[in-house]
Parts: sequence; structure tokens; C-alpha cells
Amino acid sequence: MSVMEKKEVQKVAGGSILSPEGFKAGGIHIGLRYEKKDFGVIYSETPAQSAAVYTKSHFQAAPLKVTQESMAAGGILQAVVCNSAIANACTGEQGLKDALKTRELVAARFRLPEEYVAVASTGVIGECLPMEKMEHGCSEIAVHSDYNSAKSFQKAILTTDTVEKASCVEVVIDGNTVTIGGAAKGSGMIHPNMGTMLGFITTDANISSPVLQSALKKAVNTSFNQITVDGETSTNDMVIVMANGRAENKPLNENHPDWVHFQEGLTLLCEDLAKQIARDGEGATKLIEVGVKGANSTEDANIIAKKIVGSNLVKTAIYGADPNWGRIVGAMGHSDVTLEPETCDIYIGAELVFSNGTPQAFNEQSVSEYMNNEEHVVINVLLQDGVGEGKAWGCDLTYDYVKINASYRT
Amino acid sequence: MSVMEKKEVQKVAGGSILSPEGFKAGGIHIGLRYEKKDFGVIYSETPAQSAAVYTKSHFQAAPLKVTQESMAAGGILQAVVCNSAIANACTGEQGLKDALKTRELVAARFRLPEEYVAVASTGVIGECLPMEKMEHGCSEIAVHSDYNSAKSFQKAILTTDTVEKASCVEVVIDGNTVTIGGAAKGSGMIHPNMGTMLGFITTDANISSPVLQSALKKAVNTSFNQITVDGETSTNDMVIVMANGRAENKPLNENHPDWVHFQEGLTLLCEDLAKQIARDGEGATKLIEVGVKGANSTEDANIIAKKIVGSNLVKTAIYGADPNWGRIVGAMGHSDVTLEPETCDIYIGAELVFSNGTPQAFNEQSVSEYMNNEEHVVINVLLQDGVGEGKAWGCDLTYDYVKINASYRT
Repeated sequence: MSVMEKKEVQKVAGGSILSPEGFKAGGIHIGLRYEKKDFGVIYSETPAQSAAVYTKSHFQAAPLKVTQESMAAGGILQAVVCNSAIANACTGEQGLKDALKTRELVAARFRLPEEYVAVASTGVIGECLPMEKMEHGCSEIAVHSDYNSAKSFQKAILTTDTVEKASCVEVVIDGNTVTIGGAAKGSGMIHPNMGTMLGFITTDANISSPVLQSALKKAVNTSFNQITVDGETSTNDMVIVMANGRAENKPLNENHPDWVHFQEGLTLLCEDLAKQIARDGEGATKLIEVGVKGANSTEDANIIAKKIVGSNLVKTAIYGADPNWGRIVGAMGHSDVTLEPETCDIYIGAELVFSNGTPQAFNEQSVSEYMNNEEHVVINVLLQDGVGEGKAWGCDLTYDYVKINASYRT
Repeated sequence: MSVMEKKEVQKVAGGSILSPEGFKAGGIHIGLRYEKKDFGVIYSETPAQSAAVYTKSHFQAAPLKVTQESMAAGGILQAVVCNSAIANACTGEQGLKDALKTRELVAARFRLPEEYVAVASTGVIGECLPMEKMEHGCSEIAVHSDYNSAKSFQKAILTTDTVEKASCVEVVIDGNTVTIGGAAKGSGMIHPNMGTMLGFITTDANISSPVLQSALKKAVNTSFNQITVDGETSTNDMVIVMANGRAENKPLNENHPDWVHFQEGLTLLCEDLAKQIARDGEGATKLIEVGVKGANSTEDANIIAKKIVGSNLVKTAIYGADPNWGRIVGAMGHSDVTLEPETCDIYIGAELVFSNGTPQAFNEQSVSEYMNNEEHVVINVLLQDGVGEGKAWGCDLTYDYVKINASYRT
């Protein structure tokens, strides 16, 4: 491999939803929040083959219903509108009317068919959108392709997030560069009544909606679906991807020789955004990563990893820098999969703390220091039940989590 | 009904495992804990038809394996030994040897066949029992039938519990009184490495082991299995019941005219112990009770109730006295059952806060005061999907929970 040769899949520092060709964005303040930006749009210059995944909550918010209706019309989008502060969830018939109206206004603003517009909301559950402010937003919003416009959108979708979340990946397809960019908000259902996790992805890849749907589903399964802040799922969770084909690659599908690069790149982007969300969990001081190998299946490995990273006892142990493998065993023990405890090894960082169902002598001091000093604590579990591998991400459980969530409205 | 007539099923204040005829108990300090009692025995004067349920953790501790072996021999027990401080879990071959040795020593002490002895442990995971201390305990332990001996046993089985847990129920069978007594420890997997929830039940009922097993399973399903402190399950969870037949009722089974009383009484006792455990969750200031009616099935109702009571966001809201129904909706929303959000009503205390999928106007101040003043906060959810009913119990999530669990060993 020549030193000049490009890696087939790589992250791009400083990239965003506007790194792929042909996208514009914007974010403004329309008065839903006190003074922060609260209304944003991503716009594709041409109709984009699109895909989306939605929360599995029984209480699906109105904007998700409207977006699903848009998608059902043909899988093509050209604009996504998102407001923060109010989730438009549990708002009954009025909520649905308001989401439909928002779609109509954005479609009019950009002269698009209504079904080319997706709608997303995040914020307080049970309140209706002030539609005069939304109408104002829909008429005032402008979109541009510069870096600051991406930042404006990134800011406009935040609620209790402490940082913006963006990512960009380049993949080599047909010898040329295809770019995938993303923005996200939320950290599980981390805030009282705050509609949750949103992901917006753009790409200049040439790919059809159904193929993109399957790639997105696969990518989300091992990324957004493998993070947990407190085990909650929101009424508003959604991840949307728009592909405008500007890279002019041969249509991507499983038979394309570079298909694996695209899938890998999309997954890498989703994983990067998901980790940023987990790290920004309420009150969190650390990102926790749990890797599981040797499970009966990929699904089992993912279930076990998520069970460990979601355990309150593991989360508090990591906050306390306590190399307490008993809590990891406890969490694994009651996962809904079969596993053989007798052949289980557990590592905290590089240290083997439990092997073949038996405690190991280890330097508790040095493991505790590792947990204390690292912002990214890694736990690895090795089983000998099969070849399933999986990962999950979360954060520690701290006093601040209780503080934020116990004192929100009182 | 005459004023003198006895209620068919009733709680008895101040009762214990020694309230039923023919049982003795004791608890002593053998040096596993610094100075508190840590070793106890319940003894039945005659062989007792018995039943037991065990943790579903994949990492089942050694004493549970030994108890299962005893039970498999014929379902008869005459003594149960329990130590606290060390769970004898994840201790491999040595742990199994130690649990078998403990059973052998207790059998010798009381001149019983080994298979008439059950073994239970609770405490730190991954440490072996100091067998010289256990041997000393097995030879020194004495059992008596007085109230203080019941108290000694109740104390000996505690780990981080702040209060003893005991209950007693009388039921009328064949016109006579049958008594059921119980002791318990733990509050879910509430403490780092602390083996968890143990229940010990005695009764003078005449009932065979297989019938008792089915009654116990049913009682545990709606009581011990419906409490959660932090969603964890321990390696050592176990509930054991011994029935010595001293009440000389006609053998109980589903065809006995008073069968429902016995089942009801056993369930009431288990529920009472389970609620005591939930209320004593680490750092807890309140007992939370969630009732669900109108679900598709009993099982669905139980799943929904437990999902709500186990939600970190609901738990922190109740700690903060925040009438935040959005969190209840969020928790219900991602339960693994089907439900119709559009017909869902939610009550906090007596106040309807959400109805037919729509927020209700309610006095936030008075609901917040209810949450703040009551030690027992009740949430009721009414669905219109079917006739399934269920309840679950838990506790609030407080700063002290984080404190206790983050600073255990460091």
C-alpha cells in the first residue's frame, strides 16, 4: 500500500452534515427556549433517497407519525425540520394537526411536495407547540452550506445536552470519496419529559431508499441501539438519513464491490454519534464501553453488553472507581440469554479480574487508578459459548444525575 | 357475619417465623461480620414438606445448588442454615465443597439426614467462607421457640438492611387457624457484591411439597418478583417455605374448600415481606406502589407495573416530589407488551393526571405535596386493553443510593 493511498473508511475531524455535497442547513431562535436556538432545517438541493428508524415506544410522538407518512410516500426527502424545547408528544389530535401544519409550512417555504419533508421535535412531553412561533420559524429560516450553518443546526436541536454532537466519515467507493455527515442530540431519555435521541445523517452517496433503509437499520442496531443512559426510551427517538447521489458512484447495494465500506462507514458514523450521546449523559463524568466476545450470537453479545453498561450498580462502581467485578457478574447473571458462567473471563481495562468462574488476584489499586483517571473506561467480557461479538456504551451514575432529575420542576 | 367471627385471612401484628406451631430458631455471632449476628438456623421439630424458588441468575451461588440437591431428594426439610457477610458466590469448586460441608455439619448438629438441611448465604461475592468459623457456628448454634430467638434469626440474616423484616398471617382452614410466618432480608441487588433477597417462611399447615411448591411459585410471582430496587438480581436470591402439618388440617390442595384462603394468606405474607424489602432499598425515603388495571393479561400488567416502578426517572421524580407523568408514560412506552396509549389513564395518588392519551389539568401543588408527605406513594394506571391486573413495588432513587454504591470499597 502506497503511503499516499487513502484509507477506505476514515473519520474526518471537523466534518458535519454539510460535508457531503449538496446539502444546506440553518438554525434560528424562534422563542421556544429562552434565548438559545430552537428551530433548524437540513435541506438537500435535490430530492434525496432517504431512510429512517423510529422509537419503539408505544407513545410515539406526532412528528414521528407525520415523518412516517412522508417516508411511506416513496422514501424521498428534501428537507428535515426539527424544533427543540417541546416534543409534541402525548398531545392527541391537536399535536398531529400541528405536526402536519409544520410540514406544510416547510414544504411551502422551500417549494417542495409535502411528502418530501420530515418533521422532528424534542423537548417537554404533553405540551402543544405554539404554532404562531413555528409559523414564524418556517417563514424565517434560511439555509446555507457553510460550516457555521451546520453549527447553527447542531445547536438548534439540543435540549439539556451540554455539547453539540457532530461526526463525519469518508469512504472510498468506485475509487472516489463518498462522504457521510451527521448531527445528533440527547442521551437516552435522560431528562424529565425531554424527548430524547435524534440523529440526522446526510450523504452524497448514490443509493436507493430501500437499500439505505437496510444499511441504516444495521448501523443503528450496533450504535444508537447499544447506548443507554438510564434504560429509558423516548417518545421522539428517530434517526434519519438523506442520500442525494451527488458522489455519482455506481448505485450501492450488497453486490457492489465497495458495499462493505459504505456499511462500515455508516456504522462508524452512527457509533461515533452514539458514543458522544452516551458521554454527555446527565451528570456523567465518564464514557463506559463494554465489549463482549464469545457469546452464542451477535444478538446475545449485544444484550449482555447493554445489560452490564445499563446496570446502576456498575455505573455507580465506575463513578466510585471501584473495581467491583461482582456487579458485572450480577448484571450479566440476569440477562435474558444463556451463557456459561464457568468459562467467563472479565477484564477491567487490561486487568483480568475474573476467570473461568473464579475471582483472580489482581492489583486493586492500579485498576482503581485506571477507572479514576480514564474518561473512557473499558470492560471486556470473554465467553466461550460461541462467536457472537457486541459492544455497548453508557456513562456513570452520579450525584448530579439524581440532582438534575429530582429537582427539575420543584 | 357475627362480630366474633374471625376473618378468613388476616395479618397478625408482631408475628414471626416462630408463630406457627413446632418451629424453633436461633441466631449468633460467629465472626463473619464485625460484631453483629451473622449465623442463623430455623429448625422444625418434625420433618416438613417444603418448597423453594431460586434466583434466575446464570451465576447461581453454591448454597443454592446444595439446597436444590436437598430438595430434589424428596421435598422434605427440617433445618435451614443461613450466614450473612459472605455470599459464597462465584467461588468455584471450593465454594461448593464449603456449602456441602456446612450442610453436613448442621445435619450432624441436629441429627438429621443431610438432605433435610437447606443452606443459604448472603454477602460479598467472590470470597470463600472461613470454614473454621462456620464449623464453630454449626456446633454452637442453639434453637428455641421464644420470640427473641426469632429476632436473633431475623438479625443474623441481614447485610446492609437497616431494619429486620418479619411478617405473620393467619388463615382459617377447616374452621381452625393455620399460621404462616416469615422473615426476609435484602432489597434487590442493592448493595455492591451483596447477595440479595432471602425469604424464609414457616407454616403449620398440612400440605404436600408439590402443592406447596405451586402455591409458593404463585405467591412469589406477584410479590418478591414484583419488587425492584435497581433492577438487579442476585446470585443468591431464594425463598424457602417449610410446612410441618402441626395444624392437622385436611391436606391442602386446589380441591380443598379453603384452598383460596391458604393461597391468599401465603401471597399476602410474601407481599408484606416484599414491600418491607422495597421500602428498605438503599438510600430510599419512600415506598412506591404502582397498580395497573385493564392490561391484556396479568403478566402484561405485572410487566408494565414493574417497568414504571423500576424507572430511574420515575424514582428520581418521586424523590423530588415532582408530579411528572411524562416519565410514567416514558417508562410504560418501552415495556415489551402491547398497549393502547390512546385509552390510558394515569393517577398519582387520587389525582387523574393523564387521560385518553392527553394531559389533564390538575393541581400540581397538591399532587407534589402528596408525593412529598406520603411515605407510600401510589401510582395507578388504567388501560382498556383487557382485564389484566398487577402491582409492583419499589423505592425512590436518592443521593444516598449513589453515595452508598459509589463509595463502598474506595
